[in-house]
Amino acid sequence: MNKSVDLKRIGNQTVVFANPPVILGSYSVVGPKEGKGPLGKTFSKVWKDQLHGEKSWEVAETKMLQEAMQGAIDQAGISKEEIDFMLAGDLLNQIISSGFAARQIALPFIGLYGACSTMALSMAMGSMLIDGGFARNVLVGVSSHHDTAERQYRYPTEQGTQRAMSAQWTVTGAGSLLLGKSGTGPRITSATIGRVVDYSESDVGNMGAAMAPGVADTILNHFHDLQRKAEDYDLIASGDLGEVGLALATEVLKKSGQDMGTGFTDCGVMIYDASQDVHAGGSGCGCSSVVFAGNIMQRIKGEELKRVLLVGSGALHSLTSSLQGESIPGIGHAVVIEA
Amino acid sequence: MNKSVDLKRIGNQTVVFANPPVILGSYSVVGPKEGKGPLGKTFSKVWKDQLHGEKSWEVAETKMLQEAMQGAIDQAGISKEEIDFMLAGDLLNQIISSGFAARQIALPFIGLYGACSTMALSMAMGSMLIDGGFARNVLVGVSSHHDTAERQYRYPTEQGTQRAMSAQWTVTGAGSLLLGKSGTGPRITSATIGRVVDYSESDVGNMGAAMAPGVADTILNHFHDLQRKAEDYDLIASGDLGEVGLALATEVLKKSGQDMGTGFTDCGVMIYDASQDVHAGGSGCGCSSVVFAGNIMQRIKGEELKRVLLVGSGALHSLTSSLQGESIPGIGHAVVIEA
Repeated sequence: MNKSVDLKRIGNQTVVFANPPVILGSYSVVGPKEGKGPLGKTFSKVWKDQLHGEKSWEVAETKMLQEAMQGAIDQAGISKEEIDFMLAGDLLNQIISSGFAARQIALPFIGLYGACSTMALSMAMGSMLIDGGFARNVLVGVSSHHDTAERQYRYPTEQGTQRAMSAQWTVTGAGSLLLGKSGTGPRITSATIGRVVDYSESDVGNMGAAMAPGVADTILNHFHDLQRKAEDYDLIASGDLGEVGLALATEVLKKSGQDMGTGFTDCGVMIYDASQDVHAGGSGCGCSSVVFAGNIMQRIKGEELKRVLLVGSGALHSLTSSLQGESIPGIGHAVVIEA
Repeated sequence: MNKSVDLKRIGNQTVVFANPPVILGSYSVVGPKEGKGPLGKTFSKVWKDQLHGEKSWEVAETKMLQEAMQGAIDQAGISKEEIDFMLAGDLLNQIISSGFAARQIALPFIGLYGACSTMALSMAMGSMLIDGGFARNVLVGVSSHHDTAERQYRYPTEQGTQRAMSAQWTVTGAGSLLLGKSGTGPRITSATIGRVVDYSESDVGNMGAAMAPGVADTILNHFHDLQRKAEDYDLIASGDLGEVGLALATEVLKKSGQDMGTGFTDCGVMIYDASQDVHAGGSGCGCSSVVFAGNIMQRIKGEELKRVLLVGSGALHSLTSSLQGESIPGIGHAVVIEA
């Protein structure tokens, strides 16, 4: 398909914004382990412990998401009456962290699910609502919590089950952005919505491998649609493939003729260091949301990065589908952010 | 906020489409119980049993959603290459029915979660993507399955636990629509995105009561935003409050000065009859999706109904939130369909 004046969709999967939405506010809240990691100083707030005085980890995750969203609103200096929609998602069954946060925030609420790709998906959808003329300002927020995810997806946390070296560590974190029709700040200029790609990986201890083909597919389509290559970006960050998945995605892309150079990394690789015993790196939709809202936003504002491609990566399985022997369908959603 | 030329958002929560998207195809697949109900003849396809030859109910639900989506594509006579996005959601943890259906359909996939409100939410979002200029055609599909929902949300199905009289029966059904930028058919003219409303109902055997305030809130905002009243619609159908919730929503609206007259009903009330032992009626996001794609679409096309308000109602809880003593946050999303 060719670009036409009345359609903002270009090529197979990409939309280009006529009036790119502005990131007016960004805020990130993380747990203690993330605070001690190499990006610790880039987060808006670090909690001292995983419960933060709440009666359960689930309630704490909701609270964390609310704090991040309120932080983004405050930073943007926009009144709640000027925000038309709240878009949010998380990893918990029935995305309860988002639903309960929406109860407190009380804005018209659109719930999204893209597993760890939810931040990029929310940014893409929020931008379409603004550029499409349906909203002045949109609040997006995405969270995960190590302990709520661990007991939901894997084993009782008390059991201390040994983790595979390819396994990733779910980040405790919530990131939020306030997107607006006008104002000053980095802009979201285009988005590529991914297709589900499944190479029959069924090992839930190796999610990076399951998601790598979906991420590679989206990057290839993005490059093709916009006639770009890796060098056109100062940073390409997937979120969250971890070390195993990042290496695989790099290899798949190379075999498809795309050399990703040195600017290709992963939010799950960035957030922890080798001493933190996280094996293949961070994961959970909170990971790319806090790395983007924290570190990457700072570097864009500081003019170190002029054009960034954030590629959210999602593993669209559940405990039930895995127990039934299904493989893990992967997906990647990408957004371009420019200074 | 007043209507302005560059913003399609009107009042507190409503968007009005400048070029209302057309429903080019609609298809519904249901289980045997729904086929025996009063709307049986309005569904595109009735399965003979709940498994349909698959190895699990979960795989059957995915298959049902795929069949409905393929049916809508075929009915519209649109090639897959002309469809820009697939929007889908369901009730299962991590919306696996939608994720696995997206793997087979292989279109750029946007996952949504609004519990039983997902059909109306998908129609609203799909319409915004088309009217916003981001898509030519969008496929939406929503499913639920009695047995997958029962064992996930409630008790092992083999246990035969007695159900409360206020409980609803999750519909086995998948409904799909193919929305387009141009063509002939009923049009989606506006949408109202709901806020979460929680009146502290925590009884999972009385979901209708939990959702009624959210539905009432959205209807009131919709009427306010567009300066309309109940008589402006030939049919207002919530989905799915059941009998208890419908009575409560009617009462709440009456107390707020809105007499809903005789045109206010509920997809969960319509789909079964008293002899089918479903207590308060149908529920599950498949319910409003098949009642709309089947019965309501037929009546719009047959010119019995000229203007319909479909109000999806969602209970945004999970098994975990209920076990932790949380109440059930409710939400309503509304779309207007005109002949």
